[in-house]
Amino acid sequence: MEKAIKYLNDNKQRFLDELFEVIRIPSISSIEEHKPDMVRTAEALKAKLLAAGADKAEVIPSDGNPVVYAEKIINPDAPTVLVYGHYDVMPVDPLELWDSPPFEPEIRDGKIFARGADDDKGQAFMHIKAFEAMVATDSLTCNIKFMIEGEEEIGSPNLGKWCEEHKDMLTADTILVSDTGMIAQDIPSITTGLRGLSYIEVKVTGPNKDLHSGIFGGAVANPANILAKMIASLTDENNHITIPGFYDDVIEVSDAERAEMAKAPFDLDEYKKALDLDQECGEKGYSTNERTGIRPSLDVNGIWSGYIGEGAKTVLPSVAQAKISMRLVPGQDNIKISALAKKHIESIAPASVKVEVSPLHGGQGYVSPIDMPAYKAAEKAYAETFGKKPIPTRSGGSIPIISTFEDVLGIKSILMGFGLESDAIHSPNENYPLFNFYKGIETIITFYKYFPAEMK
Amino acid sequence: MEKAIKYLNDNKQRFLDELFEVIRIPSISSIEEHKPDMVRTAEALKAKLLAAGADKAEVIPSDGNPVVYAEKIINPDAPTVLVYGHYDVMPVDPLELWDSPPFEPEIRDGKIFARGADDDKGQAFMHIKAFEAMVATDSLTCNIKFMIEGEEEIGSPNLGKWCEEHKDMLTADTILVSDTGMIAQDIPSITTGLRGLSYIEVKVTGPNKDLHSGIFGGAVANPANILAKMIASLTDENNHITIPGFYDDVIEVSDAERAEMAKAPFDLDEYKKALDLDQECGEKGYSTNERTGIRPSLDVNGIWSGYIGEGAKTVLPSVAQAKISMRLVPGQDNIKISALAKKHIESIAPASVKVEVSPLHGGQGYVSPIDMPAYKAAEKAYAETFGKKPIPTRSGGSIPIISTFEDVLGIKSILMGFGLESDAIHSPNENYPLFNFYKGIETIITFYKYFPAEMK
Repeated sequence: MEKAIKYLNDNKQRFLDELFEVIRIPSISSIEEHKPDMVRTAEALKAKLLAAGADKAEVIPSDGNPVVYAEKIINPDAPTVLVYGHYDVMPVDPLELWDSPPFEPEIRDGKIFARGADDDKGQAFMHIKAFEAMVATDSLTCNIKFMIEGEEEIGSPNLGKWCEEHKDMLTADTILVSDTGMIAQDIPSITTGLRGLSYIEVKVTGPNKDLHSGIFGGAVANPANILAKMIASLTDENNHITIPGFYDDVIEVSDAERAEMAKAPFDLDEYKKALDLDQECGEKGYSTNERTGIRPSLDVNGIWSGYIGEGAKTVLPSVAQAKISMRLVPGQDNIKISALAKKHIESIAPASVKVEVSPLHGGQGYVSPIDMPAYKAAEKAYAETFGKKPIPTRSGGSIPIISTFEDVLGIKSILMGFGLESDAIHSPNENYPLFNFYKGIETIITFYKYFPAEMK
Repeated sequence: MEKAIKYLNDNKQRFLDELFEVIRIPSISSIEEHKPDMVRTAEALKAKLLAAGADKAEVIPSDGNPVVYAEKIINPDAPTVLVYGHYDVMPVDPLELWDSPPFEPEIRDGKIFARGADDDKGQAFMHIKAFEAMVATDSLTCNIKFMIEGEEEIGSPNLGKWCEEHKDMLTADTILVSDTGMIAQDIPSITTGLRGLSYIEVKVTGPNKDLHSGIFGGAVANPANILAKMIASLTDENNHITIPGFYDDVIEVSDAERAEMAKAPFDLDEYKKALDLDQECGEKGYSTNERTGIRPSLDVNGIWSGYIGEGAKTVLPSVAQAKISMRLVPGQDNIKISALAKKHIESIAPASVKVEVSPLHGGQGYVSPIDMPAYKAAEKAYAETFGKKPIPTRSGGSIPIISTFEDVLGIKSILMGFGLESDAIHSPNENYPLFNFYKGIETIITFYKYFPAEMK
């Protein structure tokens, strides 16, 4: 693989330029008007995959945005790796907090600043370029398939069915995914657990129009006050979630495993300093890493009602709305949790308002075993490229489709993520260090060096 | 005054056309970009007052938007009436809920639909036209002064000082104001009480940027969840406000007076039906009219945080904000209440977030005696034009400047308001029935018939 890594080093600027072409297309999956951008991005990736050396590459329709599929089969007896990534990105608001336009990538301080720089255009692109380097230097050791979808940020609502329909095409020995992070540039880690997700929207309707808060205030239920009370009641003083049955299926992690997890390097003061917090906050009885790694959570992702402009308007709003997501841990079923949340929230609504709860999307959690061949190959690859054995960690994030892959395709995934916490994914000024981009490509190439042997 | 009323009847369409000219200027005082519109509106009113017969009319600067002043002195020994009104209007969002553009007045179902149709361009304009009718028919019985300001909807922050500075110019026997409502078109009423107002803005800051709710959710305080908890805690299960000291200065209304108030015609079923409510909601132990008339209230006027667009975004927001207003009753000082609210809300903030509370504006409540000459003249005027003695009522709304007039100028106000609850002031589709507009002018003219005799 030395030749492939040399090829990478000889083509660094071009790789970056090509990534920028893809980043410039504003492929925001949650906003309807970007539909044409989804197709443009998929077509751009198809072209890159063909240029990189794929035997074939296609943009295949799904019930939502299309999926980019490509493959190169070198030998039916060689192991097959299915690379998964996504070309869709998060919305960019609040736009005014970006230091440079989100879809005009810019290098500052050795980092690419742009929406999608990390999540997941940057990380998915590393696989295309690792593939190109191996093909160009004739060092490919495995069959490779690519499946790059355009709906991950909205919960991959159509990919499960798409996988069913294309099951034969997608056979593989492992699914390789770079859509997670590592502890630090000098502390490599592999994500072995992901949380599930239940995302709901709550709409509280009071009077049939906005009212004058003087003439009606005190006599008519204010939906914003009611929504605040309802949200407040969803967690108790210990930051326990109060939805009946919420914790019923949680698989508790053993004390021994918690003790093992506690050994991962973590500096709470640094963590607080990076976020400008005086105090962390979370479920009583758990550490910060446990709160995101092995415990469920409930967050308001958005809330809006009434007058939100400049100055004062004395309005008693007609409607108040909130987006609320719950991160789930192994054992919890997202559909069951969404149903419990809907039932509970509707049950606590006072008669003075109308409340609707709509589940928006969700996904199951995932746990990856550390004794499977792909994990062992990845472990050796990081040890070689970073000079340190990677630490297995549980991420608080969710990639809902990962558990679907296991259910539908029967294939386990290995999560070789190269993002950093400071990458600000989903936030203004998303960025991805050039170090991680290039080191990631090198580590992926090295994974292919070890994977065939681990499969034997 | 018959001649003046005939003049009104002969000029109905022109009066309406001229009002429309004034309504078309979008004089929203809370939005900075409308500054030029404020001056345009003031100049338009000045021109109308001169045309109506004022000896002089001026647009006089204040520390904020200018004040339109005009006068006609017929006899130094005659009583003097100072008419107060405001030419500024509320913002118009949500714009999509308007059935016709807010600044293009339109007649539908016998009503003028437009922002300011009632509050307060329509009502203030009735006085200009009553004045014109009396001047034109040589039937003026009093000296008349006009003071029409441009900052009522933002709490008249500069008019108190302006009154101090123009105290000599503003001497009068009563201040006549049409900026309130009446019970129904066939049930005339005069507002004898107004609530005070304390309006604050709360900003809760958690992490220094929006975060990924998966990676951080459960370990970092979510400012939207915290804000919801803080708002929820401001009222208890009986809809009592929990801010310490909040009720200390409330002047309780006697049982006898409550019994008297309870005689005013009111149909709770109609009230709920008009607002499409299954159940009313308010402080335990009080009726709907008491809850707005004699009891303070606390309402969220606006709340916003995180992602409020289409679809799902898994963000843990950095900031959550709310606009909260409290309506106050006689005895409560708005400055003291704002300070109590600020202190309390800041005191309940957990250490995991930063909380700022900014008082935005406020005003004192007001009670008008029913034995003063202006009340008696108004009572006779309504009895004559509506054929029914008006009912004294306490309004839930606030006109903060009214108590300031009493403090600074030493003059009581009489609140002859002709609006209806269905006028949707401060809401989309604000409207003002033509019946009320013309009947209001007639009643104002009739007030001048009785006022000099009551003053003797």
